[in-house]
Amino acid sequence: MIVQGQPYRTVSQDGPEVRLIDQPLLPHRFQVVSLHHHTQTARAISEMVVRGAGAIGATAAAGMAQAALEAPEVGFHDYLAEAARTLSGTRPTAQNLFWAIGRVLDAVAGEAPRHAREAAVAEARAVADEDAAACEAIGRHGAPLIRHGARVSTHCNAGWLAFVDWGSALSPLYRAQREGRRAFVWVDETRPRSQGARLTAWELAQEGVDCAIIADNAAGALMARGEVDLVITGADRVAANGDVANKIGTYSSAAVARLLGIPFYVALPSSTLDLSCPSGAEIPIEERSQDEVLYTWGWSDEGRFVRVRTAPPGARARNLAFDVTPGAWITGLITERGIFPATSEGVRQAAAAPQA
Amino acid sequence: MIVQGQPYRTVSQDGPEVRLIDQPLLPHRFQVVSLHHHTQTARAISEMVVRGAGAIGATAAAGMAQAALEAPEVGFHDYLAEAARTLSGTRPTAQNLFWAIGRVLDAVAGEAPRHAREAAVAEARAVADEDAAACEAIGRHGAPLIRHGARVSTHCNAGWLAFVDWGSALSPLYRAQREGRRAFVWVDETRPRSQGARLTAWELAQEGVDCAIIADNAAGALMARGEVDLVITGADRVAANGDVANKIGTYSSAAVARLLGIPFYVALPSSTLDLSCPSGAEIPIEERSQDEVLYTWGWSDEGRFVRVRTAPPGARARNLAFDVTPGAWITGLITERGIFPATSEGVRQAAAAPQA
Repeated sequence: MIVQGQPYRTVSQDGPEVRLIDQPLLPHRFQVVSLHHHTQTARAISEMVVRGAGAIGATAAAGMAQAALEAPEVGFHDYLAEAARTLSGTRPTAQNLFWAIGRVLDAVAGEAPRHAREAAVAEARAVADEDAAACEAIGRHGAPLIRHGARVSTHCNAGWLAFVDWGSALSPLYRAQREGRRAFVWVDETRPRSQGARLTAWELAQEGVDCAIIADNAAGALMARGEVDLVITGADRVAANGDVANKIGTYSSAAVARLLGIPFYVALPSSTLDLSCPSGAEIPIEERSQDEVLYTWGWSDEGRFVRVRTAPPGARARNLAFDVTPGAWITGLITERGIFPATSEGVRQAAAAPQA
Repeated sequence: MIVQGQPYRTVSQDGPEVRLIDQPLLPHRFQVVSLHHHTQTARAISEMVVRGAGAIGATAAAGMAQAALEAPEVGFHDYLAEAARTLSGTRPTAQNLFWAIGRVLDAVAGEAPRHAREAAVAEARAVADEDAAACEAIGRHGAPLIRHGARVSTHCNAGWLAFVDWGSALSPLYRAQREGRRAFVWVDETRPRSQGARLTAWELAQEGVDCAIIADNAAGALMARGEVDLVITGADRVAANGDVANKIGTYSSAAVARLLGIPFYVALPSSTLDLSCPSGAEIPIEERSQDEVLYTWGWSDEGRFVRVRTAPPGARARNLAFDVTPGAWITGLITERGIFPATSEGVRQAAAAPQA
């Protein structure tokens, strides 16, 4: 996608060098970091220089390719196994991480070092290219939902910064804009980590998509006032019955949309479908540090990145990172294979369909 | 109510001195400011040292009593008329302000200065005492809703800091606690101005009521998980048909409660009922500065009160201060006169009933 007029991917690789957009610096500084060793790449994942399922997977695969280029002739496969352990240990709950590392390991299995190096680099590239292609296809399938002048509500960041390119929830908007239909986006700031205000507002602005940030509290009221035509969010996991786990706050937004009859879509690559999970009730919900709620992080007037505390000394907080929206409240699942109902039948079809 | 073990009112008056709890310093510093002239009192209202309908009304009445004590024998009533203009100009949309000032003006009308001074002081005291008594009665009527161990969700600050004493939404909790039934409160942080995190969490802690702060995004998810037994909020205005204008975010919370069948109560003194306003659609909704959304204010690790910006440079925001919840979604209106349905008939009864 476009940053300051130039095309960028969230993650890219050039031989032994992995390049990442440094996300903690956004939106106040745009900077690409170069990583020259797989252990640097692992640290970048654990320190959340990169976040978002698709982007984490591609970064881990690129780290494995780095390791293949670094590994000595003697003990090549041991070196790769050790690198896989290092990279896997960075974000213990990221499904995409293990999957991407496994793909590179499978590609080099049984190969002699020279061929294995080529295979690792090719497989890492394939992981990234497939992620970008899936997100681009999500945009093609979702774009017809966006009419010119549509007012779209979104939550958190399910844009290209969370993937290699295009994104999930925002991809239909980028596609529609290229097709000449301009939309307007209400960006939920997405407390407590402010991914909407920090990342979504920034990447929409880079692409020239008009938007305004709102307190999460205002999303429902804007729907009630008739100022929202449709809602599109991403998903962290979709259960076999169509229930969707996504960033905390998605549920409330879906509840209001349900009561008012406003279309509510969830966009995701089919790798987010989890057929082994029968329903939302079985999706474990991460609880994170109280400090994320008790404090807010941002840039001071002097340009320093600092935190401020709004809560009283000694107060405690509860910090659920995700919630589960019933499939029955979801108008459709926008995938790289088309749009499917958020039902058992729809999820089965989406998981089985060829890429359209 | 209790602060650091001592009883306090939000607003109090002792002869020519008006004392206010300095709310912008909360929750990091508890300080009472003394105001010795009605123009100081006016400035305290405009600078939001005091906020909340009941507290603003009592402060303005106290300022009028100060003016009566200051006024010269010659030109006494002109001095009071000028003071009324000064105090009225502090918060142009606060209904309670004009009403309270009018009460003091009516009390002194046609009186000679010596009697007028006594009458002004007595009337200001009556305004404060009636506010406290109404809130105390709200607590009595609402307390039976709170069983021991109840998990109550609230939004913004409708506690004693918004009134002279007791508060509206929180008064039933304080009463239940005195009756030996302890509840637990989920405190929405209430972006963008964080009144929940700053004020509600603080005043609940002072009274020893157990609570946890949550991102506003988590309120719905906690209801879905079965962790909320009832919701109680305050109201800024109640229309003749039972629709309720309150702090932005109330609507989404009510929507989820509606879908899940969780009781949703609104607590208010009957002065908040606006029979001249036919429905929520006619309630004007204040839009406030974008900066409240683009920034967050709080205390830095060095103990300074500063703002941090999460939004990108150049981003814009929309900042609706209130929303309107349909009366049909409200289980009941808890007033000083009893609990009434949020319907045209219920509002009529609440407005006409004697204080119970």
